[in-house]
Amino acid sequence: MGDARPLPTEDEVRGYFEQCSNWGRWGATDSAGTVNLVTPAKRTEAARMVRSGRAVSLAYPLNTVGGPGNWSPAQHFMRFGPGFSMDYIGISYHGYATTHVDALCHVFWEGKMYNGQPSSDVMSDGARSNSVDAWSDGISTRGVFIDIPRFRGVPFATVDAPVRGWEIEAAAEQQGSELRPGDAVIVYAGESSAVPGRPPSPGLHADCVPVFKAKDTALLGWDMMDASPSGYDLFGPGGGLPVHVLAIVYLGMPLLDNARLEPLAQACEEEGRWEFMLTVNPLHVRGGTGSPVNPIAIF
Amino acid sequence: MGDARPLPTEDEVRGYFEQCSNWGRWGATDSAGTVNLVTPAKRTEAARMVRSGRAVSLAYPLNTVGGPGNWSPAQHFMRFGPGFSMDYIGISYHGYATTHVDALCHVFWEGKMYNGQPSSDVMSDGARSNSVDAWSDGISTRGVFIDIPRFRGVPFATVDAPVRGWEIEAAAEQQGSELRPGDAVIVYAGESSAVPGRPPSPGLHADCVPVFKAKDTALLGWDMMDASPSGYDLFGPGGGLPVHVLAIVYLGMPLLDNARLEPLAQACEEEGRWEFMLTVNPLHVRGGTGSPVNPIAIF
Amino acid sequence: MGDARPLPTEDEVRGYFEQCSNWGRWGATDSAGTVNLVTPAKRTEAARMVRSGRAVSLAYPLNTVGGPGNWSPAQHFMRFGPGFSMDYIGISYHGYATTHVDALCHVFWEGKMYNGQPSSDVMSDGARSNSVDAWSDGISTRGVFIDIPRFRGVPFATVDAPVRGWEIEAAAEQQGSELRPGDAVIVYAGESSAVPGRPPSPGLHADCVPVFKAKDTALLGWDMMDASPSGYDLFGPGGGLPVHVLAIVYLGMPLLDNARLEPLAQACEEEGRWEFMLTVNPLHVRGGTGSPVNPIAIF
Amino acid sequence: MGDARPLPTEDEVRGYFEQCSNWGRWGATDSAGTVNLVTPAKRTEAARMVRSGRAVSLAYPLNTVGGPGNWSPAQHFMRFGPGFSMDYIGISYHGYATTHVDALCHVFWEGKMYNGQPSSDVMSDGARSNSVDAWSDGISTRGVFIDIPRFRGVPFATVDAPVRGWEIEAAAEQQGSELRPGDAVIVYAGESSAVPGRPPSPGLHADCVPVFKAKDTALLGWDMMDASPSGYDLFGPGGGLPVHVLAIVYLGMPLLDNARLEPLAQACEEEGRWEFMLTVNPLHVRGGTGSPVNPIAIF
Repeated sequence: MGDARPLPTEDEVRGYFEQCSNWGRWGATDSAGTVNLVTPAKRTEAARMVRSGRAVSLAYPLNTVGGPGNWSPAQHFMRFGPGFSMDYIGISYHGYATTHVDALCHVFWEGKMYNGQPSSDVMSDGARSNSVDAWSDGISTRGVFIDIPRFRGVPFATVDAPVRGWEIEAAAEQQGSELRPGDAVIVYAGESSAVPGRPPSPGLHADCVPVFKAKDTALLGWDMMDASPSGYDLFGPGGGLPVHVLAIVYLGMPLLDNARLEPLAQACEEEGRWEFMLTVNPLHVRGGTGSPVNPIAIF
Repeated sequence: MGDARPLPTEDEVRGYFEQCSNWGRWGATDSAGTVNLVTPAKRTEAARMVRSGRAVSLAYPLNTVGGPGNWSPAQHFMRFGPGFSMDYIGISYHGYATTHVDALCHVFWEGKMYNGQPSSDVMSDGARSNSVDAWSDGISTRGVFIDIPRFRGVPFATVDAPVRGWEIEAAAEQQGSELRPGDAVIVYAGESSAVPGRPPSPGLHADCVPVFKAKDTALLGWDMMDASPSGYDLFGPGGGLPVHVLAIVYLGMPLLDNARLEPLAQACEEEGRWEFMLTVNPLHVRGGTGSPVNPIAIF
Repeated sequence: MGDARPLPTEDEVRGYFEQCSNWGRWGATDSAGTVNLVTPAKRTEAARMVRSGRAVSLAYPLNTVGGPGNWSPAQHFMRFGPGFSMDYIGISYHGYATTHVDALCHVFWEGKMYNGQPSSDVMSDGARSNSVDAWSDGISTRGVFIDIPRFRGVPFATVDAPVRGWEIEAAAEQQGSELRPGDAVIVYAGESSAVPGRPPSPGLHADCVPVFKAKDTALLGWDMMDASPSGYDLFGPGGGLPVHVLAIVYLGMPLLDNARLEPLAQACEEEGRWEFMLTVNPLHVRGGTGSPVNPIAIF
Repeated sequence: MGDARPLPTEDEVRGYFEQCSNWGRWGATDSAGTVNLVTPAKRTEAARMVRSGRAVSLAYPLNTVGGPGNWSPAQHFMRFGPGFSMDYIGISYHGYATTHVDALCHVFWEGKMYNGQPSSDVMSDGARSNSVDAWSDGISTRGVFIDIPRFRGVPFATVDAPVRGWEIEAAAEQQGSELRPGDAVIVYAGESSAVPGRPPSPGLHADCVPVFKAKDTALLGWDMMDASPSGYDLFGPGGGLPVHVLAIVYLGMPLLDNARLEPLAQACEEEGRWEFMLTVNPLHVRGGTGSPVNPIAIF
């Protein structure tokens, strides 16, 4: 905070599109994006993170009550008889209420998706490319927790101070965590009183994305999404969602939105380390735009 | 098959209720059942199973078309605009179409659930005990694959020859897999032409349950469910579902139903081992009767 | 308003339970309640109301956005291909957002429903008595519009002045509308700024119910529900919902909740009469607790 | 049947597109189609049909069990507590299981909808033209029942003998029913053993559509849909659905699909007349492709 480095100019940010692009890197028809970096060797590395065996969920319970920040609440209906009970779960998981992973077809930019696929590949019966299917064998990798409130010495990130790319690197270094290719980086901003989804809200600055590119991060998990308004009109009225656009469309990187990170922050403190095995197992939905998930960190 | 050991009598099977009971073992208010056996140490053991890093999903894609065996098909609806796509997923996952885990409130016997909780704890807004919440930190453990067709030298288990408890032990031994406390045992019967859920169907015999009790198995995954008709009228008209009743209500053991096991069978052959790390991450649904899941095996 | 007649005492209101009861009137197994008053002759009378042929809907469009007053928003999902489009509609219609009719199983009082049926008749797969099935041939009857703002000379009813039973009679008389057996009485309170469902909210006082009993009203349509808090603790904490309890459980009368009445008010003014044919055609749902509807008034 | 008039040639059927078109008739932006023929005067005429006051539903109960002919079963979930019950209804009503009305955006032909609107007006959040909104004031009109089994002296229409246009006219004449502008024509084919939606199935021949055009019919209700295969390749592989295409896209006429007509057939016999008031009140869904309905005939 004392180290308020200058913000990138609009031109610099415009350069991120090319700088951060992974288009073509894994072939012309690739739909998996940075999950390609979660190789068998990476999974083995992830499993070696497990020492104490402590497990922590990164998921909120489904929220079935509509309200501000929850326009399409989850549904949970029960049925039971003399010998059994069953239930129905219905989820419009995108938005600000449900812990979920975004597939690469979730965001378009100028009519294109990741890897240059046309947005017209998304049809009303599912996406023809960049769907969550590409990750049906799960995302099991090394997770690194970036605790911004701890780094800054504050209770939570605030609107006036978006989380910067350099901070992610500095916080990782302070914690003694190396950021390696194929990692899941989980950025904790802390719980503020902002209404989710309504600007102004604290969150990550666009200049985090070049860091994810440089480090070959495979997945970004977070609790607060894009800093909003972003301050860069090129992303649309109100400044749009630069991290969503750059990460999903150009990096081809899954976002783990609305992660519940307070228990994980506490576990990291207690375990004295900020690295763990992370398993994100999206439901197998053909043509889906993502999935509700219950990501599990194992120390 | 050549070794057709005599079937237990109805009285012997009646004895399983007491023989297999874990009621009270983990305290009067426990709702986690055999998942208590997945301790931090067990998770560490599970992670040590990872060597090659190969990952295999045990989930079928959601089936959205109603038909025989799929009375309540999954729903998948898309929405999209110029810059994004979203979707809605609705699932009545119990039944024979969706890969899912059964919570301990899914089955009642004589008005009781696991640990003696009254079935009246299950209300139309969720279960007050034995719900899937109890496993919200996930089930990450050692998995052992039991390949019945391989053991028998046949393409798939048939109606006339239910999978017996002694076979599970013998197949494990033949494969060189020790069955240890806290394991997930995955029993592969192979795909027959039976219509799911309509007797007669091949599956596991009631006498498998005492084996799971003796071995302190934490989870049973399978592709064919209870052999049906069971041959034991005490479980109800048509012979009921003895494994469901004994495993869920008395052992307190989660069932991983409708697991997709052909890819896993092939991976075991290719890897030359029948043990792996298994991660089953149920969605976090308060009061839920289970969850659709995408279980991932990592070799 | 100038004629502020004294409010009934709690003891007087307690007397309404017996005074307003139609239990047993149409047989011990009746589930149709006051819809029994919509006889073939009544339908013929209703059809004779049609003179100009003007049709007016009493339904709001489905509201698919969750928020205050809409905790379980309706769902509307589209699917389309080269030659067709289809859609899915999902509705939790009770509450304050959707125009719907309440079946007689919607409300219980002291463990009983209308006609003394036990509330245990309502099971998780539908109601065994008092369900909306009883009205599957529709409710086509004479409608009488009671315009409270017009009667009072105010823009809308306010929290401090609940709509009283005597007012309904007086307003009907002022308009020249006789209230006859089998009528649908539609009470317009006008749109205030109150948040639906959150007390304090304007609405009908409990003493309207004896008027409906005396007039043998078949259906009550309204835009604001029970005046709340009711002022009568016997209906529960915060004063409960006396009109819902007395009308549904004791009269056995369907309530048409969240009716859109401004267009109807205007049509009555322009037509110069407050009587019309009303058709309320609930969906045919076995065991249902009501139905979303689009009631149509024809002048 | 004895009067097997020659079938129209493919060229003659091709001529129906122009012959049956109502494009432009009610203005360039019209989305209501033949419902424009249900004028206030027509509603008054309809109300005059009511004599005995007998009411008959034309709706099947919702079918919640998936199977052949019901790929997307309706959902019905209950919730209840000490004082109330509620339910959720979810319906993908198009198909062969639910009684519903088709809006004019339900079918496209060569990229166009009724009145020449582009099919691209249908988006994933609703249709911009030709949606069910256009009929939100209901369809209350004179109904005429055409009883094909009665006319033919058979129990039900068969695959080898599609219902022909001339038969509709002849059956109407035999019954003494004049077909007038704005009528709802309800064609009863009787229940055969055909699996709904799977050709071959009995139904209406394409040459019925010119009759509806000539008579200025406002709505077609039926129990069996298009005769299939149609015999006219120009409608697509397998002969397509000529009545759906011609009626919805060119006439701009709502179809009332899967009407339950046996009770109505019996009522017509008993009343000795085949005319009645019909009220079809579609739910008010913005941008919807139709609606589940409970149409009510009143004699």
